[in-house]
Amino acid sequence: MTQATAYDIGLDKNSANHVALSPLSYLARSARVFPGRVAIVHGNLRQTWAETYARCRRLASALALRGIGRGDTVAAMLPNVPAMLEAHFGVPMTGAVLNTLNTRLDAEAIAFMLQHGEAKVLLTDREFSGVIDKALAMLPTHGRPLVVDCEDELAPPGAALGSLTYEALLAEGDPAFVWQLPADEWDAIALNYTSGTTGNPKGVVTHHRGAYLNAASNVISWQLPHHATYLWTLPMFHCNGWCFPWTMALIAGTSVCLRRVDPALIYPLIRAHHVTHLCGAPIVYSMLIHAPATLRDGITQKLHGLIAGAAPPIAVIEGCEAAGIELTHVYGLTEVYGPASVCAKQADWATLPLAERATLNGRQGVPYPLQEDVTVLDPDTMQPIPPDGETMGEIFFRGNAVMKGYLKNPTATQEAFAGGWFHTGDLAVMYPDGYVKIRDRSKDIIISGGENISSIEVEDVLCRHEAVMLAAVVAQPDARWGEVPCAFVELKPGASTTEQALIEHCRASLARFKVPKRVEFITLPKTSTGKIQKFVLRSQVKSSSAIE
Amino acid sequence: MTQATAYDIGLDKNSANHVALSPLSYLARSARVFPGRVAIVHGNLRQTWAETYARCRRLASALALRGIGRGDTVAAMLPNVPAMLEAHFGVPMTGAVLNTLNTRLDAEAIAFMLQHGEAKVLLTDREFSGVIDKALAMLPTHGRPLVVDCEDELAPPGAALGSLTYEALLAEGDPAFVWQLPADEWDAIALNYTSGTTGNPKGVVTHHRGAYLNAASNVISWQLPHHATYLWTLPMFHCNGWCFPWTMALIAGTSVCLRRVDPALIYPLIRAHHVTHLCGAPIVYSMLIHAPATLRDGITQKLHGLIAGAAPPIAVIEGCEAAGIELTHVYGLTEVYGPASVCAKQADWATLPLAERATLNGRQGVPYPLQEDVTVLDPDTMQPIPPDGETMGEIFFRGNAVMKGYLKNPTATQEAFAGGWFHTGDLAVMYPDGYVKIRDRSKDIIISGGENISSIEVEDVLCRHEAVMLAAVVAQPDARWGEVPCAFVELKPGASTTEQALIEHCRASLARFKVPKRVEFITLPKTSTGKIQKFVLRSQVKSSSAIE
Repeated sequence: MTQATAYDIGLDKNSANHVALSPLSYLARSARVFPGRVAIVHGNLRQTWAETYARCRRLASALALRGIGRGDTVAAMLPNVPAMLEAHFGVPMTGAVLNTLNTRLDAEAIAFMLQHGEAKVLLTDREFSGVIDKALAMLPTHGRPLVVDCEDELAPPGAALGSLTYEALLAEGDPAFVWQLPADEWDAIALNYTSGTTGNPKGVVTHHRGAYLNAASNVISWQLPHHATYLWTLPMFHCNGWCFPWTMALIAGTSVCLRRVDPALIYPLIRAHHVTHLCGAPIVYSMLIHAPATLRDGITQKLHGLIAGAAPPIAVIEGCEAAGIELTHVYGLTEVYGPASVCAKQADWATLPLAERATLNGRQGVPYPLQEDVTVLDPDTMQPIPPDGETMGEIFFRGNAVMKGYLKNPTATQEAFAGGWFHTGDLAVMYPDGYVKIRDRSKDIIISGGENISSIEVEDVLCRHEAVMLAAVVAQPDARWGEVPCAFVELKPGASTTEQALIEHCRASLARFKVPKRVEFITLPKTSTGKIQKFVLRSQVKSSSAIE
Repeated sequence: MTQATAYDIGLDKNSANHVALSPLSYLARSARVFPGRVAIVHGNLRQTWAETYARCRRLASALALRGIGRGDTVAAMLPNVPAMLEAHFGVPMTGAVLNTLNTRLDAEAIAFMLQHGEAKVLLTDREFSGVIDKALAMLPTHGRPLVVDCEDELAPPGAALGSLTYEALLAEGDPAFVWQLPADEWDAIALNYTSGTTGNPKGVVTHHRGAYLNAASNVISWQLPHHATYLWTLPMFHCNGWCFPWTMALIAGTSVCLRRVDPALIYPLIRAHHVTHLCGAPIVYSMLIHAPATLRDGITQKLHGLIAGAAPPIAVIEGCEAAGIELTHVYGLTEVYGPASVCAKQADWATLPLAERATLNGRQGVPYPLQEDVTVLDPDTMQPIPPDGETMGEIFFRGNAVMKGYLKNPTATQEAFAGGWFHTGDLAVMYPDGYVKIRDRSKDIIISGGENISSIEVEDVLCRHEAVMLAAVVAQPDARWGEVPCAFVELKPGASTTEQALIEHCRASLARFKVPKRVEFITLPKTSTGKIQKFVLRSQVKSSSAIE
């Protein structure tokens, strides 16, 4: 124990000098300082920060009246609509935990999450009533949540399932409800299930302290100005939209809602509301840069994009640069609140050729401003690997924007934190300049004749071919080499090429053993967040290999 | 007690997900991410972040080798030089507390602080060897700190007093020293004595958590870009330069050092280093706007200034606007780490006439982004006063950038935190828009015939007269009214006016009882931070009244 000094005596915490860090404070401040500014745009709706705060307090009050309190779970099956933003404040104001559900999941997965998370309330949108109806039917009668229909004029048709509507729930509540910050900033704020490809999903529990800090870290890292206008191309069910519901409250910005990622919807919103910032997986930017040029007419403002989700193909980074979208590459996982590292730009990169710049900017980078550390260690020894850009290790995080652990899963929690670092499972190298670069997910690495092949490296080369929009490379079982790379390629609209041409293209830049032995042309299977579902491709390769 | 829920079990803090908040982390990050960027400019010195980090580690290592550790005090009697910046990191890296001394104080005050703070080491600059020599002589022999001379080519001549130089101390240390974050973010980081006008100074003890948060709050509030160039017009001994040594580390910016606030030094530095940001009391800006126009030749960049220190005269706000200095008005005290509220700008102010805009911008405003609350309460009932812009109350703060308390002074600490708020002692009104406006320090209010007169309100009117540069209004004892306002006025260079003209000028805008009964023309006595020393004027009024 440390010995008490004069600086420890009579200088305790009290309610004047110590307050729980919670992003709920950001909402209260924006409602006080910028009450009349528009917080939310959705269709014809324009909702100010004062109105948003009043509605969040109504929600909290109504939930509290219905018995929701500390440690209870409120689930949400919602697209990026105002109710989803409000739930990010109204739910934790009661002490409860917000469990956003991935809207692309099937009934079995949803039923598992509702049951495992013990949701007492479910906010749901009519678009998903089919899957929700089935999921609810799978739950034991005594375990069913109170279902609340969030009505939205812009929603496609679907049955009402709830005991009441969201607006009726809000009407039960008090817009001046006196809510409390959590007694402890370590209290849970959100529950997010990771989409594991095998076994049951794990429930990532995050805390108020981390949400407060990562929301601020977004502002500092991205130099986000006061009152920025942000378009919701990133699902809020994905790591709480990388903490952006809370970030927007900190800067009293405007959130432009969006139910579906579609350039034909996106560009008119960017034009009409003078959007300047957005986030998304590479597929989002890929769609934007390949959309018809006429859609972009009249958009003169600079667009700033955060990009993450696996390693962005260099072609996307190049394409955005050409299209005037200023990309910043971030990296993270649900367990670290979304973005937890950033490829911070160096002044001397600006004069490099585009391709070189894209390569440098495509790295996972360095710690986010308020994250403590990101590094690459040998997972067996937990010692740093040499920063030579060659030696592979695993990426580890440490800091205050790291989850509490996995809900009701002490084994997985202990494994994730073994050795005092959070284990990402992503394989990477460290460059001499201290920047991390992903080589692969552990399970995506291809081992051919004892040599490791980074599927990402091969994909990057394929994507630089003029005809290729997206590429995915997986291991194909091989009698001689153990595994060999097999490529799946999605072509740009109207473009064409051949398997042989792409193999030749790869040979020009890759060591021979890294060149795909086979190339298939398909529309790639993707998750709701735009990640390519390699497990689907892998099983396809295995079954076709078995047949051959 | 709260009951444990599933979110509390098996989800504890560990070294992967919980790290002490400390601004020392900002330095480590900038040294990793931007090692080659210039951190410090001083004279001909250009020192990078990597070099600065190595020097801070040397300092910590050398101090640790000499026995300095957790809870020890290291004092610094330094102008805004590189050693002062380095001390903000090197000292707390050892667990010790940095006690910056106001370089304008006399030997008695310094001796009191060294003794009360129990400084084990004193870093000092030759400019102050006279006063330090005297102060050291007042200390008991066994209580003298290790004295270290910080040599500086730009310092005026003065005797060396130390056992060794700062560079010799650094040479004892290891540039790769493995330092530790504090075990607890509540640990003390700095000790700052407030310049009380009566009684002994009080030692404000601040903590790592608050320093981390207020440094980040500076970035968010001011929209400070990465790598901004900041000129040190604000003394670092003043609330640790409003946390800017740590803020500059967070954004990997460049600090341009400055030993003395003098426009003839400032403008060439702004030009040469493309300075964009600076902080200071109104007197700093007053000097800048009244300096010869030729000094500004060739400066084309926008200058951003934070201004605080009592209420800035409207004339200064107007003058800066005319001179192209974009001012942001902040307010705070040593107890709240410097800036703790900000007069956040509203979009609709931009189209108002200059004077109206200046009036709105001259308010103390709303909570700093990461500060929890600032409000005006009736100090007797601790209830909010009506937000009518008329009813006077006291300003109170609450949040995470609030001191631990006063060192070895439990009575003053308890008084400061009575009722769960920090008591500022400043009297103010609250406007209907939620903005706080100081009317006066409790002791500066003038009570005339039972009516309160805000000395600041009268000063603002005086400063709007074209001949007036600065004004101070104090209470003059009066047989009939109890007190009446007496004005002291400093004229602009070359300007002239009369007592009668100024009284007429006041009559045009003020209620009759608020108009000064007497106006004296003098050079106003000021503290080192540019605050007018009203206690000097008050005693002058009292003695002259006694004679009359």
